[in-house]
Amino acid sequence: MTRGAPERGFPTAEYEARLTRAQQHMHRAGLDGLLLMTEPEVRYFSGFHTAFWQSPTRPWFLFVPKDGDGDGDGKPVAVIPEIGLAVMERTWIDDIRTWPAPRPDDDGLTLLADLLQPIAARGGSVGLLKGHETLTRMPLGDLERLQNSLPGLQFKDCTEIIRSLRMVKSSLEIDKIAHICGIASESFAEAPALFHQGQPLIESFRAFRMACLRNGADDVPYLVGGADQGGYRDIISPPSARPLENGDILMLDTGAVFDGYFCDFDRNFAIGSASDDARRAYDALHKAVDAGLEAARPGITCSDLFRAMQKALGDAGYDAIGDVGRFGHGLGMQLTEWPSHAAFDETVLEENMVLTLEPSLTYGDGLTMVHEENIVVQDGTPRLLTTRAPDHLPVL
Amino acid sequence: MTRGAPERGFPTAEYEARLTRAQQHMHRAGLDGLLLMTEPEVRYFSGFHTAFWQSPTRPWFLFVPKDGDGDGDGKPVAVIPEIGLAVMERTWIDDIRTWPAPRPDDDGLTLLADLLQPIAARGGSVGLLKGHETLTRMPLGDLERLQNSLPGLQFKDCTEIIRSLRMVKSSLEIDKIAHICGIASESFAEAPALFHQGQPLIESFRAFRMACLRNGADDVPYLVGGADQGGYRDIISPPSARPLENGDILMLDTGAVFDGYFCDFDRNFAIGSASDDARRAYDALHKAVDAGLEAARPGITCSDLFRAMQKALGDAGYDAIGDVGRFGHGLGMQLTEWPSHAAFDETVLEENMVLTLEPSLTYGDGLTMVHEENIVVQDGTPRLLTTRAPDHLPVL
Repeated sequence: MTRGAPERGFPTAEYEARLTRAQQHMHRAGLDGLLLMTEPEVRYFSGFHTAFWQSPTRPWFLFVPKDGDGDGDGKPVAVIPEIGLAVMERTWIDDIRTWPAPRPDDDGLTLLADLLQPIAARGGSVGLLKGHETLTRMPLGDLERLQNSLPGLQFKDCTEIIRSLRMVKSSLEIDKIAHICGIASESFAEAPALFHQGQPLIESFRAFRMACLRNGADDVPYLVGGADQGGYRDIISPPSARPLENGDILMLDTGAVFDGYFCDFDRNFAIGSASDDARRAYDALHKAVDAGLEAARPGITCSDLFRAMQKALGDAGYDAIGDVGRFGHGLGMQLTEWPSHAAFDETVLEENMVLTLEPSLTYGDGLTMVHEENIVVQDGTPRLLTTRAPDHLPVL
Repeated sequence: MTRGAPERGFPTAEYEARLTRAQQHMHRAGLDGLLLMTEPEVRYFSGFHTAFWQSPTRPWFLFVPKDGDGDGDGKPVAVIPEIGLAVMERTWIDDIRTWPAPRPDDDGLTLLADLLQPIAARGGSVGLLKGHETLTRMPLGDLERLQNSLPGLQFKDCTEIIRSLRMVKSSLEIDKIAHICGIASESFAEAPALFHQGQPLIESFRAFRMACLRNGADDVPYLVGGADQGGYRDIISPPSARPLENGDILMLDTGAVFDGYFCDFDRNFAIGSASDDARRAYDALHKAVDAGLEAARPGITCSDLFRAMQKALGDAGYDAIGDVGRFGHGLGMQLTEWPSHAAFDETVLEENMVLTLEPSLTYGDGLTMVHEENIVVQDGTPRLLTTRAPDHLPVL
């Protein structure tokens, strides 16, 4: 790796700014706090960063209060297993309450009830993530017990608040995403050395994963793709042991990470030779990305952006949209984030949203092709974070 | 990689056996089916295997019916986003119902309501995972809407059923776990070539991750550890850029995967030289693992196993237990699974449970040390899946 890597973590000012914006939203929404328990949200407000979320055994909680009136200084409160204390103490969080987890009959519930009791006593409201693209990372039975133990407390959906905060990235967040996009771009540029006829697809995956690590990725949590004669048929498979053959179209789609931020893009390659059908599909997708780059401006909606790419595919003679359901999405601490470039999504683009442009089409006998680039919305032409795919289908 | 890898996937008979056992449990529990939505559970009953779960955008559902009376042939029914159809069609599942996800106003809800309506109409019960070590991988608001649309249906916790099924592994599952334990053991055996004084810890991590891939791991989703003078202080941190120094204790704890099955164990190394305190801590932990191997037999409980290791540490002069909360756990499709070797867990060990033995202690000024091995419970001495750590602290 030759590129200078951005500094890891964030200065406290970044967390203060996130907290201030969240508290402004809470005041408008009439919420007394947010009870968060998912990795990106806990990290967003605290900086708590660990691979330990991989273990489903222990729940982790962060409470973000509306303000400091009587309940502390207004900073988030961590309610976490003891095993995480040392890591949480290195963040900007001061109020850290722990229990010796796992403790199935009281995995944080008493601590949470104590924390929320003052709000419950005055009939207040706490936000929970209940909306699109969210999950509940605590036992559902425990959540029901917590709700029953605080009968005065209202739990309301706060997805819109978190969504609006996380969709717009800070310049330091963009630096991290740009860095990992550069690492994966560099790795894809090594394709002629990494992939070859006769190579089992699973070994192509392995070679690419190792190239990303060598080039500076912390990890490659997401790598899917396919390869088959004239094109691939699905885009979420683990790799088979089938050797690459002359005439295959190989696609790899990667979500590598640097300091907890993802890239998410793919590249298509022809092995040995390419059918005209595959070349035409590639060119149409490249033009659809052009149309997306031309359309993506602050003020338009995601559905506008979707339709711009859809029109380009229609003009090239393809009947979009296939089974992917959308032509791209947000990107950041998660491989896919709000919004969606789809007819249903009327989110208005803002400066510093990091997005994927990901048109796809079907052709031939059930074949699929997908192109993907990562951009930052800005005044004028978006900033491309990925090294743009070649204009025409590259043949290895 | 020289070792022969087990075949990927499972024969249909494996899924049939899992289904039959689940249906026996459902009959006893009075459940008409199980509504599952988490990766390990969907994979356990269907064989559906993809990295796409990394994206939080789309929910995925598998309904496991109690039997075939009137509702089909008794096999699981998949209710999934269209993007997964091609992968699901390659499994043994016949009844696959899809929708063009994402579709936030109806992400599978109508399909689920249609599927569950006959059970609701007769006042039946469906199992949901609501217990310890579970999460709810669909928007909570959508689950509430689903429940409201089926007022006759009772949703009951089915954690105990899933837990009892998944805790005991088949021989084919054990083969996969043994394989990845072997790969990680081989990678740790390369430690003298991988780690060296002056190496930033993050580069030690990178070197180990690449060794695992080179030796045949599909991925290394979990890698944590630490290094510092005389010992480390926390065991869930991402790596710093601090160079390894003479007198450091380096620990790496890895969850690498093969065909969707994890290993989970760690190794400790002294860099250049080791303090007597660190050597003594290491020896005590090694003896605690000996005690665990001696105790782990079908018929004893996890709390018995915990106390056997705790006693060995006490005999060596250490006051366990520290902030880890337990001395090991189950292992399989997840890095950590039920049960827990802890005072609260009265689970009775059975043959073919795959477990970690993971005693830990604190010493000196807030230092921690952890040892971990992976075993299969069997009649007599457990089968060790990991190459046992050296008897005494190895110095690199």
